[in-house]
Amino acid sequence: MKLLITGGGGFVGARLARTLLARGQLDGKKIERLVLTDIAPPPADLLADARVEARTGTLLSQTEAIGKEDFDGVFHLASAVSGECELDFELGLRSNLDSTRALLDALRARTAATAKVPRFVFSSSVAVFGPDPSFAWPGTVADDTLPAPQTSYGTHKLMCEYLIADYTRKGYLDGRSARLMTVTVRPGKPNGAASSFFSGIIREPLAGVESVCPVDPEVSHPMSSPSQTVNGLITVYEATREQLNGRLALNLPGLNVRVADMLAALEEVAGPKVRALVRFERDERIAAIVANWPSGGTAKRAEKLGLKPYSQFAEIIREYIADCQAGPNAAETLKGMQ
Amino acid sequence: MKLLITGGGGFVGARLARTLLARGQLDGKKIERLVLTDIAPPPADLLADARVEARTGTLLSQTEAIGKEDFDGVFHLASAVSGECELDFELGLRSNLDSTRALLDALRARTAATAKVPRFVFSSSVAVFGPDPSFAWPGTVADDTLPAPQTSYGTHKLMCEYLIADYTRKGYLDGRSARLMTVTVRPGKPNGAASSFFSGIIREPLAGVESVCPVDPEVSHPMSSPSQTVNGLITVYEATREQLNGRLALNLPGLNVRVADMLAALEEVAGPKVRALVRFERDERIAAIVANWPSGGTAKRAEKLGLKPYSQFAEIIREYIADCQAGPNAAETLKGMQ
Repeated sequence: MKLLITGGGGFVGARLARTLLARGQLDGKKIERLVLTDIAPPPADLLADARVEARTGTLLSQTEAIGKEDFDGVFHLASAVSGECELDFELGLRSNLDSTRALLDALRARTAATAKVPRFVFSSSVAVFGPDPSFAWPGTVADDTLPAPQTSYGTHKLMCEYLIADYTRKGYLDGRSARLMTVTVRPGKPNGAASSFFSGIIREPLAGVESVCPVDPEVSHPMSSPSQTVNGLITVYEATREQLNGRLALNLPGLNVRVADMLAALEEVAGPKVRALVRFERDERIAAIVANWPSGGTAKRAEKLGLKPYSQFAEIIREYIADCQAGPNAAETLKGMQ
Repeated sequence: MKLLITGGGGFVGARLARTLLARGQLDGKKIERLVLTDIAPPPADLLADARVEARTGTLLSQTEAIGKEDFDGVFHLASAVSGECELDFELGLRSNLDSTRALLDALRARTAATAKVPRFVFSSSVAVFGPDPSFAWPGTVADDTLPAPQTSYGTHKLMCEYLIADYTRKGYLDGRSARLMTVTVRPGKPNGAASSFFSGIIREPLAGVESVCPVDPEVSHPMSSPSQTVNGLITVYEATREQLNGRLALNLPGLNVRVADMLAALEEVAGPKVRALVRFERDERIAAIVANWPSGGTAKRAEKLGLKPYSQFAEIIREYIADCQAGPNAAETLKGMQ
């Protein structure tokens, strides 16, 4: 089978690609070709795999070519992130709305020509939810919570969910939308995302570096590990239409955890010296953004597919540590634990 | 002030235009210019008004020009209807999604250049709601019922609601989306819409013509009269942001009425001879479509703006009869009552 991962050079996309290549099959079919599109090339280990073909450039510039070949399945992960979209309205429209529309239309045209219906998994986001003064905001968001996005990013993700549901209803695709919870612990450097600190307060202390938490320890949020997120995307791909039981998007599982719980887990796993590298210094701008986020999530439809969150945040930290130990820079990334 | 009505040549659009011209003002400001765009020209009485300017053609072909002038307010009613969009997927995308996006972007560009924020009312639809196997379907749809559109038409209306909310959040527009209930009694001929019979079973007997009802008498649905629909659009326009209390769309009021109630009202208003012109002959195709529609609606947010449905369907029939009597063809349209 031939698969496409848009955003295949990114953190989640590259991890998904590695997992698929290691499995060798998806939905019982052998993976022969894995096309990764992104604005930057994927990591070298992926490029070294003979099954991988990398294409670099914006997704919009690549949809015409995509519409001329047969893909059995697509993981559509390419996206500008929330902070970028708030700063650049056009970027959000182009990267998250127009690109998805163009990709869907390219696949639809191909389906019309070949009568083969590709499976399509869209990475949506917990950002489709938000508080609106007109409605009671449950805080903990379920599969059927009324979406009220408070960002352009969340708006476009939600619009794409509904568009994919309609293309699926018409038989142009076999689509499903998985709403990702916040993925921690992300490796690498802090970025401009307001959620960046959720990874930073674990990653930096483990590396022996001080970290500032900009929100109160009582702030709670649904979290997922990288491996769980990738596993969720694959499970949603492999689910039958009957298992999905309806066309709407579904929440991926998250562990609903307070910042205080995260730091307690850090101390449990890595000791008090590492924990002591985190200090609280409230940032009103970030605290205001985070106050619009759900304090937790439920994922009953994903649970029916066998997906479960970790039961303890310590497991998410241990996954990150294991990833670091398997990587080339463990001496740096885990310097705080020495 | 200068106003734009897209779809201004259509039934609701033309009636809205007449009502606005008769009022002479909107939101306390004098109406100096009323631009009506549509694929067909508006009725002659509107063309005869010196304040009216009609522009004929697709909305997409007109958005560039619209973006070069100052509108104080826009009623965006132009739309392909649900049946058309199910038959022609491209038409729905182009007429209901791309055209709205192009209109919003034209207005946004103008707002950026002039710093004047136009008020914008979007005519959305009860078609954003529908049953989905994954969720309990309430049947009666409230402002905060989870939308699950079962048509491309409803999908695009919903996507536009969210897009307008985001343009509004960013300050590019002062937008609001009013979800219209089914408008009866529509004058003229039956059309291809699955809902056409709701008007037909009243309009045809009043004209002395037999009419076939394709669904059971127990079928219930929220209905609004033409004047109430127009009044709803104007009230939503004139509402302050504080009154709207949040950016999401709101339901317009409807009278939740069974087909049996409609026919009882017809007999009450026009007598048993007229009522006897309606016979039941089930059409499985139409019955299956209608089974996916809500059996009723509530409109608590619209009620807070002072909007109420009629309390009896007889009032909707009397409004239609009064319209016919004021028109040039009363001898024909009310032939059954003679």
